[in-house]
Amino acid sequence: MNDKGNDKVKNIYKESEDKVSIEKDLVPVGLENVEIQPGFWFDRIQLVRDKIIPYQWSVLNDHVARTEQSGAIRNFRIALGEETGQFYGRPFQDSDVAKWLEAVGYTLTGNPMPELEKLADQVIDLIGRVQEPDGYLDTYFTIDRRDQRWTNVRDMHELYCAGHLIEAAVAYYQATGKRKILDIVCRLADHIGSVFGPEPGKKKGYPGHEEIELALVKLYHTTGEKRYLDLGKFFIDERGKLPRFFDGEAEALGEPKPYGPTGGKYTYEYNQSHKPVREQDVAVGHAVRATYLYSAMADLARETGDMSLAETCQKLWKNVTGKQMYLTGSIGSSAFGEAFSFDYDLPNDTTYGETCAAIGLVFWAQRMQQMDLNGKYGDAMERALYNGILSGISLDGTKYFYVNPLEVWPESCEKRNDKSRVAPNRQGWFVCACCPPNIARLFASFRGYMYSRNSEGIFIHHYANSSVNFDISGQGVALHQNTNYPWDGNVEVGVSLETPVEFTLGLRIPGWCRNYELKINGSAIDIRNMIRRGYARIRRTWTPGDKITLDLAMPVERIRANPALRADAGKVAIQRGPLVYCLEEIDNGPILADISLPKDALLKARFDGDFLGGMVTITGEGSRTDESSVGPELYTTSEYVRKTRDITAVPYFAWNNRGPGEMLVWIRET
Amino acid sequence: MNDKGNDKVKNIYKESEDKVSIEKDLVPVGLENVEIQPGFWFDRIQLVRDKIIPYQWSVLNDHVARTEQSGAIRNFRIALGEETGQFYGRPFQDSDVAKWLEAVGYTLTGNPMPELEKLADQVIDLIGRVQEPDGYLDTYFTIDRRDQRWTNVRDMHELYCAGHLIEAAVAYYQATGKRKILDIVCRLADHIGSVFGPEPGKKKGYPGHEEIELALVKLYHTTGEKRYLDLGKFFIDERGKLPRFFDGEAEALGEPKPYGPTGGKYTYEYNQSHKPVREQDVAVGHAVRATYLYSAMADLARETGDMSLAETCQKLWKNVTGKQMYLTGSIGSSAFGEAFSFDYDLPNDTTYGETCAAIGLVFWAQRMQQMDLNGKYGDAMERALYNGILSGISLDGTKYFYVNPLEVWPESCEKRNDKSRVAPNRQGWFVCACCPPNIARLFASFRGYMYSRNSEGIFIHHYANSSVNFDISGQGVALHQNTNYPWDGNVEVGVSLETPVEFTLGLRIPGWCRNYELKINGSAIDIRNMIRRGYARIRRTWTPGDKITLDLAMPVERIRANPALRADAGKVAIQRGPLVYCLEEIDNGPILADISLPKDALLKARFDGDFLGGMVTITGEGSRTDESSVGPELYTTSEYVRKTRDITAVPYFAWNNRGPGEMLVWIRET
Repeated sequence: MNDKGNDKVKNIYKESEDKVSIEKDLVPVGLENVEIQPGFWFDRIQLVRDKIIPYQWSVLNDHVARTEQSGAIRNFRIALGEETGQFYGRPFQDSDVAKWLEAVGYTLTGNPMPELEKLADQVIDLIGRVQEPDGYLDTYFTIDRRDQRWTNVRDMHELYCAGHLIEAAVAYYQATGKRKILDIVCRLADHIGSVFGPEPGKKKGYPGHEEIELALVKLYHTTGEKRYLDLGKFFIDERGKLPRFFDGEAEALGEPKPYGPTGGKYTYEYNQSHKPVREQDVAVGHAVRATYLYSAMADLARETGDMSLAETCQKLWKNVTGKQMYLTGSIGSSAFGEAFSFDYDLPNDTTYGETCAAIGLVFWAQRMQQMDLNGKYGDAMERALYNGILSGISLDGTKYFYVNPLEVWPESCEKRNDKSRVAPNRQGWFVCACCPPNIARLFASFRGYMYSRNSEGIFIHHYANSSVNFDISGQGVALHQNTNYPWDGNVEVGVSLETPVEFTLGLRIPGWCRNYELKINGSAIDIRNMIRRGYARIRRTWTPGDKITLDLAMPVERIRANPALRADAGKVAIQRGPLVYCLEEIDNGPILADISLPKDALLKARFDGDFLGGMVTITGEGSRTDESSVGPELYTTSEYVRKTRDITAVPYFAWNNRGPGEMLVWIRET
Repeated sequence: MNDKGNDKVKNIYKESEDKVSIEKDLVPVGLENVEIQPGFWFDRIQLVRDKIIPYQWSVLNDHVARTEQSGAIRNFRIALGEETGQFYGRPFQDSDVAKWLEAVGYTLTGNPMPELEKLADQVIDLIGRVQEPDGYLDTYFTIDRRDQRWTNVRDMHELYCAGHLIEAAVAYYQATGKRKILDIVCRLADHIGSVFGPEPGKKKGYPGHEEIELALVKLYHTTGEKRYLDLGKFFIDERGKLPRFFDGEAEALGEPKPYGPTGGKYTYEYNQSHKPVREQDVAVGHAVRATYLYSAMADLARETGDMSLAETCQKLWKNVTGKQMYLTGSIGSSAFGEAFSFDYDLPNDTTYGETCAAIGLVFWAQRMQQMDLNGKYGDAMERALYNGILSGISLDGTKYFYVNPLEVWPESCEKRNDKSRVAPNRQGWFVCACCPPNIARLFASFRGYMYSRNSEGIFIHHYANSSVNFDISGQGVALHQNTNYPWDGNVEVGVSLETPVEFTLGLRIPGWCRNYELKINGSAIDIRNMIRRGYARIRRTWTPGDKITLDLAMPVERIRANPALRADAGKVAIQRGPLVYCLEEIDNGPILADISLPKDALLKARFDGDFLGGMVTITGEGSRTDESSVGPELYTTSEYVRKTRDITAVPYFAWNNRGPGEMLVWIRET
């Protein structure tokens, strides 16, 4: 095997840090051209289709007992006068329906399901009937609050809900070709464009919760109507200008000073409106809002060739992934404001790490990748996907984590108020239910994140059993991935085409991988000099039946944190391939903090077909206090006797699927 | 030197754990019979007299700028109609004046200060004039809320304020012999006895914040009036009975259910009224309330010979000191409710550890000691006094910590909401200003905690330069302590008497001490068999000029925590004698979490006369990450290079006297 070596890894990163690029002709290969085949992601996508979408539909209709009520569909009926009652839930309750519909759209793409499509059409009909004559669409205001429309975009999520509906419409239109929902959101977007904009008499505002900006870019791509791109750009450019639009709103509402989000509970950092976006270089505030904003900024930089915006995105990316991201790809370490706190402040047990924020990181990473092709974006996406996002959902698809801690002591979560936001068990639904449908739409669209192409060729970002079709020089080409990823690092890529054709095949060499080997048709190729910006770029004339074999060595690794990350001092985390591992009480007994890992302890990985449907678990010799040396004393001058004790680590994402208990990612090294 | 050995230590504790005793004839030697002489405590008591009492008087009169306002004296003037305005501050603002007056009383005992006494008399005159004809005394209600008297004793602190005034009165009366304030509080106590009590028509209530119970025992001792003891016992016995008195109050006030302290914000565990006191075996709720309650319970057990109460006290003591106490003697690890959380939950950086709660532990320990003479109580008192209480005040006496963390990262305290209660710097005063005058009254009465006596002889609980007078078999005896404690463990005790007399001299052998030597008139005595329940009990016929020399070896010790205390896993704390040490950023650079202490590193203690007025500091060879091995990466598979780095530890109580910065008690051991 080639040894990429540490220097080489650093070089790849250095290259990218020096200069951000805008690769204008790189585009993702759409869902319709990718088919996921049986394997790790296939199982999860099936779960979305067969279980999560029906389950969430039941919840949205309040048909699931023993969990938080949603009221989301009922709100639409109340808005129409078909049911009586009051609006139920958060002002952004509509967005749960939109995200569900978006997941349905992705699920139906290339996969007809007439019953589900019929249901979705009924939902679209319901949505269409709620739309007001001027295009306005938001049940929170249509029910009882018509006079308050557009009076508090800082807190009331009207633009956020519109954004989600636009994303749903684009997904459903692309899946089915049916224009109805697309027409609905175009009318809505045009209505918004009549309220907000640079023209005299229009509001110089922008949303308190970013989302519509990236949605408008999607709507522009789908319709070709540049006014949607312009409106998205307007929202981005207005943000943070002085005098502050939100202060004008607050004054008009008669709010007491100091003004700020949620009636002054938060500062304007909370929604990233503290200064113009191009002056921002440290990620602050509500982490989901931040990533949705940064996603739109990357979109716009790419669309408009705006290098100042691209450079801002790069600075923010460096700050988030270099100073504010958990090893699991979770971000936003503070429960107060669901927010970024500050550099290197990543406590493991009092974290937040909202599932939606890690999903937002994936959205942003994809756009950074499209703009500035570099393996580091795929690395971060992978880190979040396989760890801090997958942890957000139970293996059976019906329970969710909103907060994703790296260390849990259940009794402490229950009894300490400062850990009250850290649930020790996944829940069936939430009062604020943003995360479950966000997972559904992400998984359902996962295959859209796997490949990109440009005039040069095709790039594989993620490894999973799948086929992809694209054409190059006028000829159709198909690639077939065959892999057991993430359980092992062997990836076979078969090339199907009719006649030989020259193109570049780019394969992301993951940042976690230090040794790899590539063969074409059985012959090893030295690809060290073919790696640029994290991708092995193999340019050749491919012939029918060519087979590439990439072998990414996947040893068990001990990860160490930068010393400035105080919470992880003296500790290591176990990682294998893209997966972070953790200790659970069920395997290792209580008081996990007592366990240490000797520096010389061998850690062995083994695929266990019986473990939660088949997973690689890791075992090794840890160290524990010998109970016989422990007395009742709370403090002592004695040294406790340590003894060897076998430990078992399991994939972090799989924790809490075997009942409640302690969990620990960062383990003391001795 | 004799080696007490670990077994011996355990034996001492075992002995006491088996059976609690009630030593009815043991009494503290009063302040009037103890004189503190120049040394560690002398300096602090002088500070109380010369700086803290005048400073706090200024604050109570709102004469100190740049700090929280008090309004406490002004409230009395408003109550009299001599000033206009509204009551300012918390409902218990009066208690700040009472605690100040109590500190004055202790300060004047055996130490005439005519100016201060005149000022105190004026305050007493002011208090007396506010007292209502029926004996009621509480400015919060007298100003504007007369109709609400005694309607919400759960939250409104009327009985708490009365308790503090009684304690002040007893102290001032004992200092000066002037009855005026004693008469005032007797009228107040009699008024309370007319409102609360077992007789028909009286309220079957008890205070939301315990305090009056222990005060009534003091009033009983001072006046000999048994009705005050009975009323204190009534409050203790009623507590936690069903139906709950507080629920009746809440219903009468029209509060929404569920009822609970602070309008249902807390459960009844908060004020220890969740069940009858004799059924309580785990410390719960607000830690100051708890210790004041337990203090009164110990008082009453001793006064009434109530073994069930004594056993309850013992169980609670075991729970607090064995499972819920920081190494610094701080207790109450949860900011929410300023409360105990649960066993072994002692986080270092998100702690509470209120100064008042550690003071409450001292009050309770003293009463346990009087009831059940055992060195473990003195050990805990000493732990709290020299660490978690002394830390509460700056060396100049004008700045205070309310919360006493064992690990501080200032940026994190400022930026993380879940650490918002942990101040990285002492403050001049507080909105809720319980702690500063509590420190003042404790220090001013410290000499009252040093000695106890019974018919057998005298017991020395604490070591400090002082003289004590007592009489035995009709003859006056004086002991003279000469020591540099806590900086070294050498204690000389000289005996002054006219003719030889037989009595027991008990010397507490601190729990931290493993090697000691005792000489009488220069001859070593083997005292191992004379130690019972933590005291070396030397019974002999003492002759004029006898000199005892106790040498308590004070090596630097590494302390380890019980493995169940997860926050301290793999860490050691440095302790020398009674003092816990800490690392500060000013000596050791930032990122203290990066520092580790090799197991074989020698730690040297040295008295540094220039360090903050003269203290023992500790130095040794620690280990740190070599900065040259640290790159920009947040996570890495590389091992960072460690290098040797001298570290300096300073007494925990002295931290934050040289500017802001990180602080750390528990250090990783490698």
